[in-house]
Amino acid sequence: MFGAKNNEPIYVVGHKNPDADAICAAIACAELLCDLGYDAVAARAGEVNAETAFALSHFGFEHPQPFEPSSDAAVYLVDHNEPSQMADGITMEQVVGVVDHHRLGGLKTSAPIYFRAEPLGSTCTVLMKIFTENKIEPSREVAGVMLSGIISDTLLLNSPTCTPFDEQVAHRLAELAGVELEHYGMELLRKKSEIEDVPASHLLARDLKEFSFAHHRVAIGQVELMEFAQIEPKMDDVLAEMERLLDEGYELVVLMITEILSKTSRLYAVGSMDALRVFERAFEGKLENGYIERPVVSRKREVVPPLERAFMEE
Amino acid sequence: MFGAKNNEPIYVVGHKNPDADAICAAIACAELLCDLGYDAVAARAGEVNAETAFALSHFGFEHPQPFEPSSDAAVYLVDHNEPSQMADGITMEQVVGVVDHHRLGGLKTSAPIYFRAEPLGSTCTVLMKIFTENKIEPSREVAGVMLSGIISDTLLLNSPTCTPFDEQVAHRLAELAGVELEHYGMELLRKKSEIEDVPASHLLARDLKEFSFAHHRVAIGQVELMEFAQIEPKMDDVLAEMERLLDEGYELVVLMITEILSKTSRLYAVGSMDALRVFERAFEGKLENGYIERPVVSRKREVVPPLERAFMEE
Repeated sequence: MFGAKNNEPIYVVGHKNPDADAICAAIACAELLCDLGYDAVAARAGEVNAETAFALSHFGFEHPQPFEPSSDAAVYLVDHNEPSQMADGITMEQVVGVVDHHRLGGLKTSAPIYFRAEPLGSTCTVLMKIFTENKIEPSREVAGVMLSGIISDTLLLNSPTCTPFDEQVAHRLAELAGVELEHYGMELLRKKSEIEDVPASHLLARDLKEFSFAHHRVAIGQVELMEFAQIEPKMDDVLAEMERLLDEGYELVVLMITEILSKTSRLYAVGSMDALRVFERAFEGKLENGYIERPVVSRKREVVPPLERAFMEE
Repeated sequence: MFGAKNNEPIYVVGHKNPDADAICAAIACAELLCDLGYDAVAARAGEVNAETAFALSHFGFEHPQPFEPSSDAAVYLVDHNEPSQMADGITMEQVVGVVDHHRLGGLKTSAPIYFRAEPLGSTCTVLMKIFTENKIEPSREVAGVMLSGIISDTLLLNSPTCTPFDEQVAHRLAELAGVELEHYGMELLRKKSEIEDVPASHLLARDLKEFSFAHHRVAIGQVELMEFAQIEPKMDDVLAEMERLLDEGYELVVLMITEILSKTSRLYAVGSMDALRVFERAFEGKLENGYIERPVVSRKREVVPPLERAFMEE
C-alpha cells in the first residue's frame, strides 16, 4: 500500500539540514520499500552531521547520495511534511508518500498518497511499527540506524516526546542490532554534543528549521549539549550568525541550546522588536543576556506550539 | 498510538454532506478507538442520505448524533482532511487524528497528531487495515457498515480507485457481516441511485465538495445513477440550483452525473466565462447541452487532478 508501483525508483529523503532521524529514517524507509517490492533509494537533503556519520559508520552504511532534483522521480518524504523543509526542487506532484512524527505543515497534493504520521518520539519508531505491521524484520544494520534515530530524537529516551512505545521499540531494536542500549546511546549523544570543531555558522545551520506562523517567517535552530559551558566560547559568533540570518527575511531567529541531561534549554532570540515581544510573551519571561532559560528540550512540542499561538494572537 | 488519552470523549466525524463512507467510517473508527481503550463517539456533519440510512438500518445502527461544535472536544476526522470540508466549528487545535483516502488538503496543526491516509478505495478499507494491524476483529455489525462504505465509494468494486486490497477486504468483511457481497452490493447501489423523491437542491448539495484550486473556489458534486435517464426530468432544476450556488462565491460549480454500470459521467458545469474555459481545457472538450461526457467515475482521481492542473496553468 505504498504509493503507485512503477518502474522508476522512489527517492526517500528527509528534511533540509538533516539530523540523525532524517538520514536514518531515509535509509530504513528505503529498505522497507524494497522489502515490499518497490525500487527505492535513500537520499539526503544536506550534509551528514558528525553524530549521524558515527551511527552510519558504526553499522556499516555509506552516506546516502545527495538528493538531485529531477522532475519526474517519485519521492517519499521522511521526518518532515512541511513544504518549507522539503529539499529544493521537490514539487507536490512528485510526493507519493510521507512517514513522519511532526505536526501537519499544510502539504497539498493533487491525488491521494500514502501519509503516515504519528505522535511518537521519532520517525524511526513509526517505521519500525510499519515493519512490524508488514511482518518484516529489519536487518541488523537497519535496526541499528533506526535505533540511532530514536536515541538522537528522544535524547536517549529522555525527551517529553518519548512515549512508552518508543522505549519498547528502542529496546527491541537494540536487541536486533546487537548493541547495549545505554552504552551505545551515551556514545551517540556524546558525538551529538561535540562542537569544538564546528564553526558557529554551521552550529546554527545544521539543525535549523523554518516555520510560517500566521504568515511570519521564523527560523528555529537547536544545539544539544552535555553542558551549556561547551558553547560559551562560541556564543558571540553564533549570535552574529543569527543576526545575519535576519537579513535573509526572517522576522525572528530562535536558537535552543539544550543541556541534554539537565533537560533545560536556553532559548536565544534575535529579531524585530515586535517579534521579540511575541517571543517573550510566548515563553512568559524577559530575554536576559540574550536568552530565556526554560525546562524544555523539544522544539516540536515545547517551543513551536507556544510560539505559534503567540503569533496567532497578535 | 491514537492521539492523546484523556478523560474527554473523542468525536469521530466525517465531512460535510456526508456520504456512506463518511458516516460508516465514523462509526467504525469510533468502535476501533473504543476497542483500543479510548472513549470515542461517532458524529455526523450533515444529514444521513437514503443509501446510508439503508446500510445503517440493515446492520442495526441508529444515525450518529449531529456534530455539535464544542471548543475543547478532541476530534478525529474520517474520510476527509481538507479544511473546507470539515464540519463548521472544528478548529485545527481540536484535531487529534485523521483517517482518510483523499489527497492532502493543506491541513496544519500546531502539534503532532495521528494521520493515516492511503490511496485506497475507501476510508473503511484503511480502517479495516488498522483493525487488522491491531489484531482486532470488528463486530458483525461494524463489518457490515465498513463493507457498505467500500461498496458505496468503489461502486461495488468497479471504480478506478478500487485496488486489489479493497477487493480482498470487501470479501473478508462480507464474510464477517454475513452477507453475500454481490447481492447486498446491488441492493445498496440501487438505494444510492434512487432519486425520484429527492428535490433538485438536495441532489446537488448532498454530495458537494468544495475545493480551492490556485485560490479559485470550486464546488464539485456527484450523483450516481443506474442510468442517465433517471435525472433528465430534474435536470433543469438542478442546473438552476448550480447557478444559484455561483452567488455564494464559487467561480465554478461542477456536477458529475455518473452512470454506475457503464462507468461514464456527464460533467455539467456552470461558472464565469474564464472558469468554463479552464473546465473545457481540463477535460479536452466543449460543453454541449451543458455537459462534457467522459469515461470517468471518480471525482477524486479523474476530475479533481485535471481541473486543479488546468487552474494552476492559468
